[in-house]
Amino acid sequence: MTSSDLQAPHCHDVPEADGKSAVQPDKKRLVSRLNRIEGQVRGIARMVDEDRYCVDILTQLGAIRAALDGVAMQLLENHANGCVAKAIGAGKGEDAIAELMDVVRKLKS
Amino acid sequence: MTSSDLQAPHCHDVPEADGKSAVQPDKKRLVSRLNRIEGQVRGIARMVDEDRYCVDILTQLGAIRAALDGVAMQLLENHANGCVAKAIGAGKGEDAIAELMDVVRKLKS
Amino acid sequence: MTSSDLQAPHCHDVPEADGKSAVQPDKKRLVSRLNRIEGQVRGIARMVDEDRYCVDILTQLGAIRAALDGVAMQLLENHANGCVAKAIGAGKGEDAIAELMDVVRKLKS
Amino acid sequence: MTSSDLQAPHCHDVPEADGKSAVQPDKKRLVSRLNRIEGQVRGIARMVDEDRYCVDILTQLGAIRAALDGVAMQLLENHANGCVAKAIGAGKGEDAIAELMDVVRKLKS
Repeated sequence: MTSSDLQAPHCHDVPEADGKSAVQPDKKRLVSRLNRIEGQVRGIARMVDEDRYCVDILTQLGAIRAALDGVAMQLLENHANGCVAKAIGAGKGEDAIAELMDVVRKLKS
Repeated sequence: MTSSDLQAPHCHDVPEADGKSAVQPDKKRLVSRLNRIEGQVRGIARMVDEDRYCVDILTQLGAIRAALDGVAMQLLENHANGCVAKAIGAGKGEDAIAELMDVVRKLKS
Repeated sequence: MTSSDLQAPHCHDVPEADGKSAVQPDKKRLVSRLNRIEGQVRGIARMVDEDRYCVDILTQLGAIRAALDGVAMQLLENHANGCVAKAIGAGKGEDAIAELMDVVRKLKS
Repeated sequence: MTSSDLQAPHCHDVPEADGKSAVQPDKKRLVSRLNRIEGQVRGIARMVDEDRYCVDILTQLGAIRAALDGVAMQLLENHANGCVAKAIGAGKGEDAIAELMDVVRKLKS
């Protein structure tokens, strides 16, 4: 098993109703980043409620978007290193790459 | 008072330590949209925790970004119709527009 | 005429078939920036033709996007300082701001 | 050779000073798309020169950005199907994926 297999998420077929699943290698850190973002969104709702100045709220919204993008890029890299690399190794690269590109296009818009 | 004044947030100087404040005209709806987004972020943390497939999580992240962008655009429109229009009417348009453009650039990146 | 009128584009109704027109205050600089971008796009076509490495081409494409965004933000600021400020001064702010927001949304996607 | 090898760009080491190169499978179409974009940029410079309405120019700029993004996504897909898949097959996936993610991040901003 190369280092990338260790570092990358391990896609394994589990009898899930919704098919695929993947264990993120940095799962705890991702969850705590998401918890922090959740708190930031709550903070913005409070700012609106407290009639805070629009530009201050918008600046905070920009920070949350950047934090979300950071989580998305990490998940994308995990996915590419894990599921996509595994599919390519198994000769099923084209579908996995097409799926990867769909996600990239959605995140780009 | 023109319809835009009624519809637009009312910027009023209140003795706040942080200076400006603004009452959003659609405050309740904005707060409830933000509460929904907060719940969606919590949902994503759960998906990561439950080892859900990366692409499913990334698709949800894309939906949250779009929802956040929607809130940002609404706040930006409120701000332009309220604070910026008011500043222009008072002959202080250039600073207000420069501030507006700073926010647009941040949200664009 | 306040400094912003001098600096801002002068929207004047000319008997144009397509209605409005506006003289950009920094017209020469905008045109030369656009000429430079035109040359960069030509350069990318040459890179593809010369079988250059994908990542090098993509990096150049990113630079062109940033240059285009810079021109767009300058035009947007000119428009806000000129046409929009003028419309607000004439009590027609809401339509002008709605039009401004449409452009911001398009440029954001 | 699987269909993806045929369809994907063929990365071959040629004695180029700048190292890698890649033949895009849809090279002619990419070059003609870029030539069209070049003409559109020239058209925008003319619109500025002819004092056309800011919003009309900005709308055209938005169309060019979308066209550029389309070319970028095509090149990215070619690269993933070609160079990256090849590197993964040769056990050098992690570096190729790290490079791919750098490009995705640049194109996202």
